[in-house]
Amino acid sequence: MSDFWDVVKERRTCRKFLREEIPLETVLRLLDVFKYAPSGANRHPWKIVLVKDEALRKEIRRVSEEAESDFHQRAPDWMKAFFQEQGIGPQKPFLSEAPYLVCVFGRRKSPYFKESVWIAVGLFLLAVTNAHLGTVPYTPSRKRAISDLLKVNLEWDLQLILPVGVRDPNEFIAERPKPDVREFLSIK
Amino acid sequence: MSDFWDVVKERRTCRKFLREEIPLETVLRLLDVFKYAPSGANRHPWKIVLVKDEALRKEIRRVSEEAESDFHQRAPDWMKAFFQEQGIGPQKPFLSEAPYLVCVFGRRKSPYFKESVWIAVGLFLLAVTNAHLGTVPYTPSRKRAISDLLKVNLEWDLQLILPVGVRDPNEFIAERPKPDVREFLSIK
Repeated sequence: MSDFWDVVKERRTCRKFLREEIPLETVLRLLDVFKYAPSGANRHPWKIVLVKDEALRKEIRRVSEEAESDFHQRAPDWMKAFFQEQGIGPQKPFLSEAPYLVCVFGRRKSPYFKESVWIAVGLFLLAVTNAHLGTVPYTPSRKRAISDLLKVNLEWDLQLILPVGVRDPNEFIAERPKPDVREFLSIK
Repeated sequence: MSDFWDVVKERRTCRKFLREEIPLETVLRLLDVFKYAPSGANRHPWKIVLVKDEALRKEIRRVSEEAESDFHQRAPDWMKAFFQEQGIGPQKPFLSEAPYLVCVFGRRKSPYFKESVWIAVGLFLLAVTNAHLGTVPYTPSRKRAISDLLKVNLEWDLQLILPVGVRDPNEFIAERPKPDVREFLSIK
């Protein structure tokens, strides 16, 4: 129960979770935002697989980390600098350490499915913050392998995985100044 | 100053605006969400052109409606049925009647620029609702012509236009039942 702007300002990415269980009901309540989110022609073009099973989370992590090593080697220099500043490597411990993975798929044939999914993700990030929990929008490089693990057919495009859990208060996050609105805005 | 979930549940698309001015400062405060939104590698890959000038809004409307007539003719049957149910036609009066158009561009070369822009749009929709104003995410078909009107070069991809104004309380919106979470969720 927080004021809207407080939630917006408190939101921050979490990549380090405590090994702490949270009730399934809590996560289901967060997923309610997908009921209320708008979507292209009101098609609700998403499918969500909520992964609680630890063995499956570990397998998703293993598959993802395999691809991440390649990705980190190929990244442009400025991105490598960003990764280093933030302490981000090809290891994705949050995929197995958070008690839940919210895997979000978009229906390829629905109009504006990608736009719709990511609007809903915006709402979800705030819902997680509002519940004093942590998450990070993780876009896996090996989408196909994860769809296979989750037995989701190719009608659906894996958009992202959102680990959800209790944030580790000791997580290191490099502080970055917020841009001023005038930096990206012009008025006509 | 509303509770987060109240804002989520009150949000609805608005396509009909009162001819009522709102202070520029109000709109600038709403655009603050773009400061606080997350983005791929923290690049804030967006540019916003806020259009207040009425002649320019009318021109954007004219260019958009030209393209919409084609789009409505080519739409699949289920989408035509949706348009009819909602009273949506190729006319886009909201583009000239709302006192502001928030035109959002994504930087093509930034990683995950599209995902980042649409997360921020999700936050913006809630910010507008929180301020008791109305908006609709409008995706123009003739992006290039509008970019030219706004003098934005092709490094930037026009993602959407969000008219912002005072909603007409008499707007007709066909009520549609919200899906149950279980309709799009599976748990593993």
